Amino acid sequence: MLPTTPLTPPFALTRASHVVLGVRDLGRSRDFYRDVIGLVVTEETGSAVYLRGLEEAAHHSLVLMAAGDAPRALQVGFRVRTPDDLDRAERHLAAAGIEAQRVDVAHQGPTLRFRDGVGTHIELTASMDLADRRMQAYHEFRAGAPQRLDHFQVVTHDVQTATDFWAALGMRLSEYTARDGTDELWGTWMAVKGNTHDLVFTNGRGPRLHHFAYTVPDATALIHAADVAGSLGFGNEIDRGPGRHGISNALFLYLRDPDQHRVELFTTHYQFIDLEDQPIRWDVSDPRRAQLWGLPASARWFFEASEFPDEPVREPLMTATPATLEDYLAIH
Amino acid sequence: MLPTTPLTPPFALTRASHVVLGVRDLGRSRDFYRDVIGLVVTEETGSAVYLRGLEEAAHHSLVLMAAGDAPRALQVGFRVRTPDDLDRAERHLAAAGIEAQRVDVAHQGPTLRFRDGVGTHIELTASMDLADRRMQAYHEFRAGAPQRLDHFQVVTHDVQTATDFWAALGMRLSEYTARDGTDELWGTWMAVKGNTHDLVFTNGRGPRLHHFAYTVPDATALIHAADVAGSLGFGNEIDRGPGRHGISNALFLYLRDPDQHRVELFTTHYQFIDLEDQPIRWDVSDPRRAQLWGLPASARWFFEASEFPDEPVREPLMTATPATLEDYLAIH
Amino acid sequence: MLPTTPLTPPFALTRASHVVLGVRDLGRSRDFYRDVIGLVVTEETGSAVYLRGLEEAAHHSLVLMAAGDAPRALQVGFRVRTPDDLDRAERHLAAAGIEAQRVDVAHQGPTLRFRDGVGTHIELTASMDLADRRMQAYHEFRAGAPQRLDHFQVVTHDVQTATDFWAALGMRLSEYTARDGTDELWGTWMAVKGNTHDLVFTNGRGPRLHHFAYTVPDATALIHAADVAGSLGFGNEIDRGPGRHGISNALFLYLRDPDQHRVELFTTHYQFIDLEDQPIRWDVSDPRRAQLWGLPASARWFFEASEFPDEPVREPLMTATPATLEDYLAIH
Amino acid sequence: MLPTTPLTPPFALTRASHVVLGVRDLGRSRDFYRDVIGLVVTEETGSAVYLRGLEEAAHHSLVLMAAGDAPRALQVGFRVRTPDDLDRAERHLAAAGIEAQRVDVAHQGPTLRFRDGVGTHIELTASMDLADRRMQAYHEFRAGAPQRLDHFQVVTHDVQTATDFWAALGMRLSEYTARDGTDELWGTWMAVKGNTHDLVFTNGRGPRLHHFAYTVPDATALIHAADVAGSLGFGNEIDRGPGRHGISNALFLYLRDPDQHRVELFTTHYQFIDLEDQPIRWDVSDPRRAQLWGLPASARWFFEASEFPDEPVREPLMTATPATLEDYLAIH
Repeated sequence: MLPTTPLTPPFALTRASHVVLGVRDLGRSRDFYRDVIGLVVTEETGSAVYLRGLEEAAHHSLVLMAAGDAPRALQVGFRVRTPDDLDRAERHLAAAGIEAQRVDVAHQGPTLRFRDGVGTHIELTASMDLADRRMQAYHEFRAGAPQRLDHFQVVTHDVQTATDFWAALGMRLSEYTARDGTDELWGTWMAVKGNTHDLVFTNGRGPRLHHFAYTVPDATALIHAADVAGSLGFGNEIDRGPGRHGISNALFLYLRDPDQHRVELFTTHYQFIDLEDQPIRWDVSDPRRAQLWGLPASARWFFEASEFPDEPVREPLMTATPATLEDYLAIH
Repeated sequence: MLPTTPLTPPFALTRASHVVLGVRDLGRSRDFYRDVIGLVVTEETGSAVYLRGLEEAAHHSLVLMAAGDAPRALQVGFRVRTPDDLDRAERHLAAAGIEAQRVDVAHQGPTLRFRDGVGTHIELTASMDLADRRMQAYHEFRAGAPQRLDHFQVVTHDVQTATDFWAALGMRLSEYTARDGTDELWGTWMAVKGNTHDLVFTNGRGPRLHHFAYTVPDATALIHAADVAGSLGFGNEIDRGPGRHGISNALFLYLRDPDQHRVELFTTHYQFIDLEDQPIRWDVSDPRRAQLWGLPASARWFFEASEFPDEPVREPLMTATPATLEDYLAIH
Repeated sequence: MLPTTPLTPPFALTRASHVVLGVRDLGRSRDFYRDVIGLVVTEETGSAVYLRGLEEAAHHSLVLMAAGDAPRALQVGFRVRTPDDLDRAERHLAAAGIEAQRVDVAHQGPTLRFRDGVGTHIELTASMDLADRRMQAYHEFRAGAPQRLDHFQVVTHDVQTATDFWAALGMRLSEYTARDGTDELWGTWMAVKGNTHDLVFTNGRGPRLHHFAYTVPDATALIHAADVAGSLGFGNEIDRGPGRHGISNALFLYLRDPDQHRVELFTTHYQFIDLEDQPIRWDVSDPRRAQLWGLPASARWFFEASEFPDEPVREPLMTATPATLEDYLAIH
Repeated sequence: MLPTTPLTPPFALTRASHVVLGVRDLGRSRDFYRDVIGLVVTEETGSAVYLRGLEEAAHHSLVLMAAGDAPRALQVGFRVRTPDDLDRAERHLAAAGIEAQRVDVAHQGPTLRFRDGVGTHIELTASMDLADRRMQAYHEFRAGAPQRLDHFQVVTHDVQTATDFWAALGMRLSEYTARDGTDELWGTWMAVKGNTHDLVFTNGRGPRLHHFAYTVPDATALIHAADVAGSLGFGNEIDRGPGRHGISNALFLYLRDPDQHRVELFTTHYQFIDLEDQPIRWDVSDPRRAQLWGLPASARWFFEASEFPDEPVREPLMTATPATLEDYLAIH
């Protein structure tokens, strides 16, 4: 069933903002995101590394936290418009019976943490320390020259519940995958910042973070990222792409970091602002949904994702799995 | 003086939407925008041609109107969020003593026309007929493969007044040029849709439409647009670029249509959403403001622009002109 | 064993020139090569279609011949420098006991046909009708905008014999794959025109034409070719790529035509002119040989190829097969 | 008058190989070519810096020599095929009454120096120390990622004599500019390595080295080079481009080094191998000859070039000058 987004949400959510990852080896992960992906290191401490895309004026969009032997996805972060919106969010969550806590987070303004309707670990803030945009320091560009964090994809056991939860907070459905001939939701692409999506839910064992995504300037940057991954010894960590998604029209490349967290580099989403824009529907059995050309994704890409700490993973309510590369090769 | 944008504007302006041009020869102008620029023709009548970018789901972002021997810029169009916002706009303008009129415009919902604080002819609407996005019809891509209309630049005799007018309606200043060492505004870049700008004002004889701009996918598309312009005999109608603006970080190419209206193709603006993002200031004498490398713009680019019908053009209040290519060559 | 190329070959072979394919449906194949690949149609007759790349000044580099129900690779064509070189070639082959025949071929000068040392059907000519280079008709560029035919890859049961045959005619080894730790040849990349290769032999059931290859301008053109294949319904006919070969450094995309002949689009070979340049050696078990990043090629890519008419296919003398995508997925 | 190239030249010239520049400040020039252009430093001594393109397997294609206060173009280098070809060159020059001398040059095999028919300082060698190709060290790519030296352009007072001289050595004319309606040569593009040109002569005060040129992978690399020049403070040293030459079809960018020597980055020449390929003729008054779109070159680009030491500069025999940017702006 398609969700309803209120014209006037309870508070002003503005954009996907940052992700916090627990990693086993800070130095190794920093090297990966700086040299193979091309992010800028804003700051390092003994227990954390803060990174951002080249055009970002905020202190961080990726935080790596030392996490011993248990690499996990720690926080999926969004921005709200003002501190008042954070207060409104707090009241809204309380009214909805959702436990939330104010926390002090380095380099961020007041921050609220909670688990969304399907257990995703969420963090909201209205502000962050400023950093300078490096988008015109062209001589510092490396690898894919990622410009900014764009969106998250979360695997969930219950796409309908997850989607309804975020629609109520102001996210609009831009595209979705449904069981063939029905509106039984298999995957939902939801947007708040005016382009294709900020947050995606797909059906599976969850909650787990499937990936977070940075925009790159163009197809050439994407290929260069793949080449740099190859020349730095990370060629096998490309677990999908380059390819073109039917959904969202993204040209994509997916890489796995040293803890097997997955990061996407992509280019060319489209604008999604007008209220009259209708969500695009895809059958789950339509392979063009996931890939307009070339081979489908492997089981590794479909079924591996990062768990949240102490968050139980549940089996999906829906049993429908797109064909994997393994299925495809067995047929052809 | 920097303008103040209210947290809660009088109505919800959402984005630059469309431009209406008066042209002398409909067929010739249609050919130019379809073949040299690469826009999609949505519809043609005896007196008008409607075009849109490849990803646009709205009926038109460019309208060509037969205009006899007097080619003019006719309307600069913006979207508001809902029909209620159009009502609110009407009340706001009335309260401010600005004459506005409801008009019936083909393929648009209720539409409001008025002249802004400096005489620019403006059109607001909340909706438009839908069209299908052609962004995945890759075999139909031509020339620069323009994806969507992004912004307008208007020359005005009074940048301060123009800027204050639109700031009051919710536009935020992302970058600006000021007389050296002052905040006396020479040019202002104002945004509402979350990227660098929707509307630009620069100092000069005005009001005149300097250009409207479409995004292209990447630098390669921009170069291909120039090559296609060359091979179709429009090489001389490139009146600036390719080059890189300091302001906005756009890689740009400017072309003149058969009536000398100017269209920009560009790529890679940056995101501008957070309230804490500060506008970037440039001295008017700093050449990097306009061009990070290569030659400055010629007088033709600086001083030619499209007038609005029956709208008197006034001399600028400020006397400050950036160095032109002609100045530069005289020095070197 | 590495072959020896004489300083003064028996005649002056200059470059890979053209390929002739037997196809079941001329119109369908023409549409594929014109619309999905982007070649220029020079001429069509009732029984043949002649195509060329955008920069080519020769009448054809690809000839499609109506072939009823038996699509085959018909001819692999090379240029010699002058008609005298064709005479010299004729004498050389006769002296070597190889049967060759002069044939009349439309739009070509005197032409010599023979089977090389491993049964590949070869055609030599010194001249061809001229056509105009379309490389500056940018508005006619379609799909990958292929510029020129570059090379052929042939599967053979006996790479050593094939390699020695062509080395004796003046081809130099630029790169090769050998059984690990030996110089037992699994694949050889041979060049005569000054870049990486004109002719490749790889070990397998042969002789069969694995693919012929056109250069495209850049990575963006390659991605656009894939996108156009997708939007025209040929997405499944991409049987490998985009990816980056270790050997030759080509960024590649392989497509299958309606008869399952395989064509490669690629970009960025390197220069190979100096006599002191040494061939680069790769172990057959080294996956970077075939792909610097991402997934290996599927069995479909490795084992399917086009037979020559009435030419018996023999089992390879060497038993060594690189890991396929299927092998890779079974491990991972 | 068009030159005649013998089928069997006196010795085998193979390609443009290297250029030697005298510079005032070795460190500053090294930084420019490494950081702004993107060349690889092979070796540095107290008096020289040796650089090469990313794919080059030869020790150097650019040599910077400390030259006090007199920056000059020192040598324009070509390769011959074998040491025997160097002997043949020596005999041929002696027979033609041209003084040549064998010299010892670090990292080169036997080397012959002479002045060509119009006074250009030339160096021939058959071999050079080998270096490893860095084309797959993608993480080391900088700026335009130049792959290899491609050609030279020399200004000469007598294009006819220069052209005849090199045609006699085996260079073929691929394109030329002539006084309108005549074959009186204003500029000649001559090739030996199988693409558009290795050596260009244009009419003017000479002999002076106008520029040497490196290929870059694509348009995106060219734009990135311009951006890096801008961000490193060399934006004003782009003295032409980006633009598209009619002649040769090159997408070009010209930069001046700290001593005002000029280097071109370009992409997409075409293949020129077949003897039947005819040279393309352009009228000197045809602006498309030099630029398919956008503005013509400035006087700075046309009239500034690097002298050779102790080589008198002569006034051109022909009086015909293409329109400059200055002329163009005065008209428009």
